[in-house]
Amino acid sequence: MYDFSQRRSIRRYKTQDVSDELLNSLLMRASQTQTMGNLQLYSVVVTRSEEIKHQLSPAHYNQLMVTQAPVVLTFCADFRRTTDWALQRNANPGYDNLLSFQNACTDTLLYCQTFCNMAEAEGLGLCFLGTTLYNPDAIIDILKLPLLTFPVATITLGWPDEEGKVSDRLPLCAIRHDEVYRPFNAGRINASYSAREALEENQRFVDENHKDNLAQVFTDVRYTADDNLKISVALERAMRRQGFLSSLGETIED
Amino acid sequence: MYDFSQRRSIRRYKTQDVSDELLNSLLMRASQTQTMGNLQLYSVVVTRSEEIKHQLSPAHYNQLMVTQAPVVLTFCADFRRTTDWALQRNANPGYDNLLSFQNACTDTLLYCQTFCNMAEAEGLGLCFLGTTLYNPDAIIDILKLPLLTFPVATITLGWPDEEGKVSDRLPLCAIRHDEVYRPFNAGRINASYSAREALEENQRFVDENHKDNLAQVFTDVRYTADDNLKISVALERAMRRQGFLSSLGETIED
Repeated sequence: MYDFSQRRSIRRYKTQDVSDELLNSLLMRASQTQTMGNLQLYSVVVTRSEEIKHQLSPAHYNQLMVTQAPVVLTFCADFRRTTDWALQRNANPGYDNLLSFQNACTDTLLYCQTFCNMAEAEGLGLCFLGTTLYNPDAIIDILKLPLLTFPVATITLGWPDEEGKVSDRLPLCAIRHDEVYRPFNAGRINASYSAREALEENQRFVDENHKDNLAQVFTDVRYTADDNLKISVALERAMRRQGFLSSLGETIED
Repeated sequence: MYDFSQRRSIRRYKTQDVSDELLNSLLMRASQTQTMGNLQLYSVVVTRSEEIKHQLSPAHYNQLMVTQAPVVLTFCADFRRTTDWALQRNANPGYDNLLSFQNACTDTLLYCQTFCNMAEAEGLGLCFLGTTLYNPDAIIDILKLPLLTFPVATITLGWPDEEGKVSDRLPLCAIRHDEVYRPFNAGRINASYSAREALEENQRFVDENHKDNLAQVFTDVRYTADDNLKISVALERAMRRQGFLSSLGETIED
């Protein structure tokens, strides 16, 4: 494996294309990733069309990578294909529920990440767009995603035209728990976050946002309770629209 | 990267331990995986204790790997640490909602899969236990997982004591869609599944289960509508128990 400790997201790409041969090879090899019952509960929509990239762009808050990258990949949780297989084999599928949604998301994200690891090992650059869950309805419409599919991850992919920057990460004491979960007291929070908070770029980030500290930038600016709640309601509605909650009763938000 | 096309799950392990040094190195290197806003919304509970392995075993339907593997890793979606960080910095966190749950699951699964790819590249063998979502309550109790954490993936890890078997996978036409999702008509379903259905081991699997075809084994035996619905209700309840739906109104199942 390549030196993963130097991994960085890439947001600027050369105009040089990513060949279908390479793309297909990566998509196939990545499919050896473990999957529930070997059902491979995912599909990938490949966007090369300028028109569709421009349609997708607002759903990703107009991040430039979407229109600049030669390839945009939307990884979708997919119980549609399995359901169609069952229906065409006189079998009785029952995958319109929350568990099936989570299982398909799991398969999709594991597959997606192996794809990312492999693509980066090939020298490709990519950026993972977490915005996919923020505007599922638009993406569903543009990519014509049928019932029992759901967009869960988007990757912009191309040959790097920037170095990118290796991000700092939390120390292991923030991540690892032995035998049982160890609660975070003030000492452990400090041990986990102090180095990050002291970084010059983060102090600048706090100043630019007129906040007292880095945590407040996240809670008050980047990921606010109000936004999270609004988007949660829309997300749940989209899950229902795609048929993943139709075995269950009332909507959460009703 | 090692030859991923030969990847296989490993369910039998040597008694030789996995050193903490190697484990920590993998856990740290994998943390370069992309993560939402660099928040790293995951934690990993490392189980080496025989006692806790035996407690976890029933939650994973007593699959032998859980007690046989030297290490069991439970990857947890975690907004607890971020929330505690915020609370200790006079910030106002709002991550008790569905979006935050999905974002944390996403971070966790991407991190988990990079870990898996790296571990396998080191020669370790592992098995991913999809059962984690089937019995979250038991795992939450045993590992003492606090509010705003949720177990989403379990890995049994060790040095391989079997060759394992490379699984067949669907052809690319089952996975890849160009520009928009292409519906699956009978022809495309056949193109996607015929080779798999023709495998001798799958025909034996159909016979053993007294079914007409492979799809029916999945819908009638392995992943039935009844089970999926029951487990969905329990899953939603566990998400609520862990505080991830407390901003929203009534429960789905009420």
